Amino acid sequence: MPTPKNTLFIIGIGPGKDDLLTIAAKEALAQAKVILGYRTYLAQIAHLIRGKEVRATSMMEEVKRAQEALALAEKNGPVALVSGGDPAIYGMSAPVFEVLAARRRPYHVRIEIIPGVTAACAAAARLGAPLSNDCALISLSDRLTPWEQITRRIRLATEGDFVLVFYNPKSKRRKNQLKEALEIVAHRRPPDTPLALVKGAWREEEKIVLTTLAEKERISALADMSSLIIIGNSQSKLIDDFFLTPRGYGEKYRLTDEKA
Amino acid sequence: MPTPKNTLFIIGIGPGKDDLLTIAAKEALAQAKVILGYRTYLAQIAHLIRGKEVRATSMMEEVKRAQEALALAEKNGPVALVSGGDPAIYGMSAPVFEVLAARRRPYHVRIEIIPGVTAACAAAARLGAPLSNDCALISLSDRLTPWEQITRRIRLATEGDFVLVFYNPKSKRRKNQLKEALEIVAHRRPPDTPLALVKGAWREEEKIVLTTLAEKERISALADMSSLIIIGNSQSKLIDDFFLTPRGYGEKYRLTDEKA
Repeated sequence: MPTPKNTLFIIGIGPGKDDLLTIAAKEALAQAKVILGYRTYLAQIAHLIRGKEVRATSMMEEVKRAQEALALAEKNGPVALVSGGDPAIYGMSAPVFEVLAARRRPYHVRIEIIPGVTAACAAAARLGAPLSNDCALISLSDRLTPWEQITRRIRLATEGDFVLVFYNPKSKRRKNQLKEALEIVAHRRPPDTPLALVKGAWREEEKIVLTTLAEKERISALADMSSLIIIGNSQSKLIDDFFLTPRGYGEKYRLTDEKA
Repeated sequence: MPTPKNTLFIIGIGPGKDDLLTIAAKEALAQAKVILGYRTYLAQIAHLIRGKEVRATSMMEEVKRAQEALALAEKNGPVALVSGGDPAIYGMSAPVFEVLAARRRPYHVRIEIIPGVTAACAAAARLGAPLSNDCALISLSDRLTPWEQITRRIRLATEGDFVLVFYNPKSKRRKNQLKEALEIVAHRRPPDTPLALVKGAWREEEKIVLTTLAEKERISALADMSSLIIIGNSQSKLIDDFFLTPRGYGEKYRLTDEKA
C-alpha cells in the first residue's frame, strides 16, 4: 500500500547505532521526501538519508520543527521527523501533539509514529539487568518542568524503591541538577547502591562507568548531554562486571544448576 | 567479525510486528544455532527462524530457560534467547543474570543483549503522546514481587504525578490486581484522567480503548496478558482521538502557527 502524501512519520532511531534502528524506521526514512531533526541525530543517520532534502535544526527548536514538519506533510509529504531513542520518551511526539492540540484549524495530516529503542533500554543492555524491577524515568531538564516538581518526583520514586533512570542529566547550561538529584537519592539509599553512567550508548565513543552512590561526585563530573544515569533499588547489586536488579526469581526457584 | 561460538544473545523482538524488530535482532536470530523462548513470542517470529533448532517453553519457566540457554551457549552456540519487547523491562535479562549471580562456577559464555522496543513505547506510538513527561513503569504481577510493595509503588508514583504504565495487568490466574490498582489511582486522581488500554499493540488483533479513569471497571474487565495500561498525570488530556501528556512547550512557546 503506498504511503499517503500527507503522512508525517515521527521516527525513533534508537541509540544511534545503525543496526539498532527498526526495519520500519529505515523504510520510513527511505519513503520520506523531507527529513527534519536535531542535527546530532541527523548526523547519526546521514548515510541513510543521502540525496534527500534535510532540514537540520538546533536543540530547543522542537516547536518550530514540529510546526514545519506538519506544514510540509500537509502540502507535500511524506515527511520524516526524527527523534533519538523513542519519540514518546522525551522525544518529538510531545511537540507535535502539543501543536495539534493548540491549533486554530485542523491539519490534514496522517501521523504515523514509529517507536524505537529508548535510552533506558539501550543503556541497560550494556550493563546486565539493571531495570528488572519497577522503574521511574525522570528527565532532569528543568527547561520545561519546574525543578521543585522534578525533585519531588525523585524523592517519591526513591521512597517507592523504584530503580531510577535519569534522562538529560546535564548540559552545558545545566550543570548542577545531577549533583542535587544524586544527593536527594543518597539521603535515602545506602552508599553501596549501584550507580551506572552510560555515555553515548552503543556508539563508537561509548563510555560506561559502573560504580555506587558513594561515587556520586565523580559521576556528576563525568556526565554530559549524551549520558544516561541508572540508580539501583534496595535489592540491586554489582556482581563481577554487571549490574543486577533481581526480579525475584531467587526467592522462588533454585537458581544453581544441578549439574554445575 | 564472526560471532564467537560461546555467544548467548538475549534478544528483544519488540511488540511482535516484523518490521519493529531491529536489524541487529534479525541478524542475531539468523546467526543462532538454537533459539529459546516463550512459545507465544517464538510464534511471532516463526518465519524468521524456520529450519533452526527451536526450544519453546511455557510461561513461568524463565529460570529453566535461562539455565538451558547458558549451558547450550557454553557448549555449542551461538544461542538466541528471545524476549518480547525489550529484554531489560520484565524480560529475559533478569533470569539470566540472576542465574549467573547464583552460579557455583563461572560460565564461559559471552552475553550480548540486543535491546528492543518495549511495550510502553509500542503502545504510546498508537496513542499520540501519552508518555511525554516522567513516567513510572510498574508490573502488576505479584508472582515474584509482594503485592503490598506493588501497591505502595502505585501510591507513591501517583502522588509524584508520574504517568503510570502498568505491565502484566492481568492473567488467567491474576484477575483482581488491575481493578485494585486502578482504585488506588482513582482515590488520588480525578475521574477525567486519561486512561488507555492497548491490547496486542501493532499486531493484527490490536485493540485500543482510549477513555478516562471513570471507566476503570470497563478497562479492568477488558484487559488481558497482552495488554498494557497507561494512566495520564494531572496535565494529561484526551483531544480528538489522541492522548496527550504535555511536555510543557505551551508554557514557553507560541504553539499556534502564525500563518494558520
